[in-house]
Amino acid sequence: MATPTLSPLASPLPTLGVVNGVTLGSIQAGIRYKNRTDLMMMEFAPGTTVAGVFTRSKCPAASIDWCKAALPQGVARALVVNSGNANAFTGRAGVDITQNIAAAAARMVQCSASDVFIAATGVIGEVLPLDRVTEALPPLYETLAPASWEDAARAIMTTDTFPKAVVKETTIGDTPVRIQGIAKGSGMIAPDMATMLSFIATDAALPQSVLQTLLSDGVDRSFNRITVDSDTSTSDMVLLFATGKAENPTVKDLHDPALVPFATALREMLHELARMVVCDGEGASKLIHIRVSGAVSNESAHRVALSVANSPLVKTAVAGEDANWGRIVMAVGKSGEPANRDTLSVEIGNTWIARHGMVVIGYDEAPVVAHMKGKEIELHVDLGLGNGLSEVWSCDLTHGYIDINGSYRS
Amino acid sequence: MATPTLSPLASPLPTLGVVNGVTLGSIQAGIRYKNRTDLMMMEFAPGTTVAGVFTRSKCPAASIDWCKAALPQGVARALVVNSGNANAFTGRAGVDITQNIAAAAARMVQCSASDVFIAATGVIGEVLPLDRVTEALPPLYETLAPASWEDAARAIMTTDTFPKAVVKETTIGDTPVRIQGIAKGSGMIAPDMATMLSFIATDAALPQSVLQTLLSDGVDRSFNRITVDSDTSTSDMVLLFATGKAENPTVKDLHDPALVPFATALREMLHELARMVVCDGEGASKLIHIRVSGAVSNESAHRVALSVANSPLVKTAVAGEDANWGRIVMAVGKSGEPANRDTLSVEIGNTWIARHGMVVIGYDEAPVVAHMKGKEIELHVDLGLGNGLSEVWSCDLTHGYIDINGSYRS
Repeated sequence: MATPTLSPLASPLPTLGVVNGVTLGSIQAGIRYKNRTDLMMMEFAPGTTVAGVFTRSKCPAASIDWCKAALPQGVARALVVNSGNANAFTGRAGVDITQNIAAAAARMVQCSASDVFIAATGVIGEVLPLDRVTEALPPLYETLAPASWEDAARAIMTTDTFPKAVVKETTIGDTPVRIQGIAKGSGMIAPDMATMLSFIATDAALPQSVLQTLLSDGVDRSFNRITVDSDTSTSDMVLLFATGKAENPTVKDLHDPALVPFATALREMLHELARMVVCDGEGASKLIHIRVSGAVSNESAHRVALSVANSPLVKTAVAGEDANWGRIVMAVGKSGEPANRDTLSVEIGNTWIARHGMVVIGYDEAPVVAHMKGKEIELHVDLGLGNGLSEVWSCDLTHGYIDINGSYRS
Repeated sequence: MATPTLSPLASPLPTLGVVNGVTLGSIQAGIRYKNRTDLMMMEFAPGTTVAGVFTRSKCPAASIDWCKAALPQGVARALVVNSGNANAFTGRAGVDITQNIAAAAARMVQCSASDVFIAATGVIGEVLPLDRVTEALPPLYETLAPASWEDAARAIMTTDTFPKAVVKETTIGDTPVRIQGIAKGSGMIAPDMATMLSFIATDAALPQSVLQTLLSDGVDRSFNRITVDSDTSTSDMVLLFATGKAENPTVKDLHDPALVPFATALREMLHELARMVVCDGEGASKLIHIRVSGAVSNESAHRVALSVANSPLVKTAVAGEDANWGRIVMAVGKSGEPANRDTLSVEIGNTWIARHGMVVIGYDEAPVVAHMKGKEIELHVDLGLGNGLSEVWSCDLTHGYIDINGSYRS
């Protein structure tokens, strides 16, 4: 694997604190990588509730099936994540391995295996070396500590060039609560979930049903709006654990006004984590923010935005700092969504290039050229048909993507 | 624009003859390119019938609207094609320009403007310099000759690295007939038509309805089964002209047995032209042939095949000669089509890698590694669910694609 250089869009790791009720850590299990941690564990206090969102892949990894089966109970005591091997498309063996890892963790934590959540990321189709995981788990368990969040963020990385974490301090009622989240992912990123791995913990006390709705809604507005290469992994998930240690006032339901600051903070966190993932898109040199307005519906706007976001010709034009707005029109046209050439308008940065189906008279490319040289590119398409809106984040397509993916397994 | 080097998958130009009833030629009109021909014209004998298939883009170029309006009359006297500027997304100006070019050609040919078919390919969103076309048309018209097929094939190229033509000799009844076709296209290639430009002429005498059905059916099996980058142009079309000069026996309808050799030859030609287009895919170093079997329907198989064919992770793995079949599984999973991880099988070359959801016991990668080093890569997915079949042709994703598309307009 080519050693990736730090993404030019990388953000620094924030100062990570602790989440009461969570201990965590990482270890070098030697699953695939040499000289780096590749196994991460979190332990949660009894009574921790959990919410999850999973890949929509029709060929999910064994860990996805495991977590989906465990989720309805709504409680969690541990999380075990390995990088280097996705344990996907490994048949009965993969199912057994997942079960064995959960059982091994459960013995240490003294809980039911179904209280252990499992995730794996890395190469598909190779059987995960179970022994290396089960041998590494006891020494890892000995080291679990409340402050090891950075270690955890690093241990789940694959082709990531920087660890990703976000911290939010908020309140429920008058009680301060904390949310910390980590994420990994830089390729095989596309909406409909299947985005990457992200694990978020809070000391808030929240019913599972509230937690699940907040997470599903937040993922829809964040991780499901980013795309690196239109490819969707077999293995990816977002899990949100709430330990209850903050002892905040009871939240009855989603409409409880006391929930508003927490819901806002969680939504912001999901957005920031998703943004970091696309900023670490394999080979990315520019973040692309695509807004679509004037569509016949929000859903239609979203499909048009994705068509632009996933177009290799748009993505290479951005990489080349070329304000090639004709390719944006092409991508709108191929989306199959209602569009009318003669009502279509295109804006790059703050400059309208085309209005109502043709180039603006006296269009001056200079400010657009300047905008294209920046790190964050704003593309806006107005379809001129209705009130449908959407926005999507993507990144450019560069030689770096080819370098990384033309030699991933070697 | 980077000077493209010849595709390693290029095929030599066949010996091109004449099609009775067709004269053609090309000229340097200076539309965009320097020192190369960029305007091509064909003149057809009176009584020539025409069939066409057009992009499904919702933002088509003016030439597409023009040809679609002209097609129902079923007759053609001329074709004018320029490269370097697609005259797309140019609003009312673009419509007027198309009309003016048709009128200018019609005056020379002495026909109705609606008997003139127009096509354009190149950059989107810039107004086509009409004067250069109308000034070049009269001297071009003077040079039209029956044997200028190679010139025509070269004049319609844009980022193509080789001219594309196919010749077929066949019969209708006992009468020899000839079909000659040319094509261009190497980027912005994806199914649902919108593939590229291809112009085919035959001296056969065939009713327009028969011609249209043969063309639509053949395009469905050829140009709609290739993909370079999943991008769909605003401008592309396939036109088939039949001059009738062969004076073959009258064909009554599609079920006439005398039509079989012609229909077969046309279908082969469309397949060969489409294959050449994907072999000239921007930056392509390998042709990828994807077969999907065992799907719940042919349509489902087709969508799975396209998901594999368009996956950047599959395409970069092929570029890297990496038999990364896990990415094929990923692409099947993300297609959204019915698939069952535990009945899925994957074959590369003639080697089954995975059967029924897991790697074959004792799988030897050596023959697969050898196959991946070749120029034509065979990927086969069996879904194990039903009898649905499809096949699609694609190409790998290399640094060359980035080089070409990161600097197209500069």
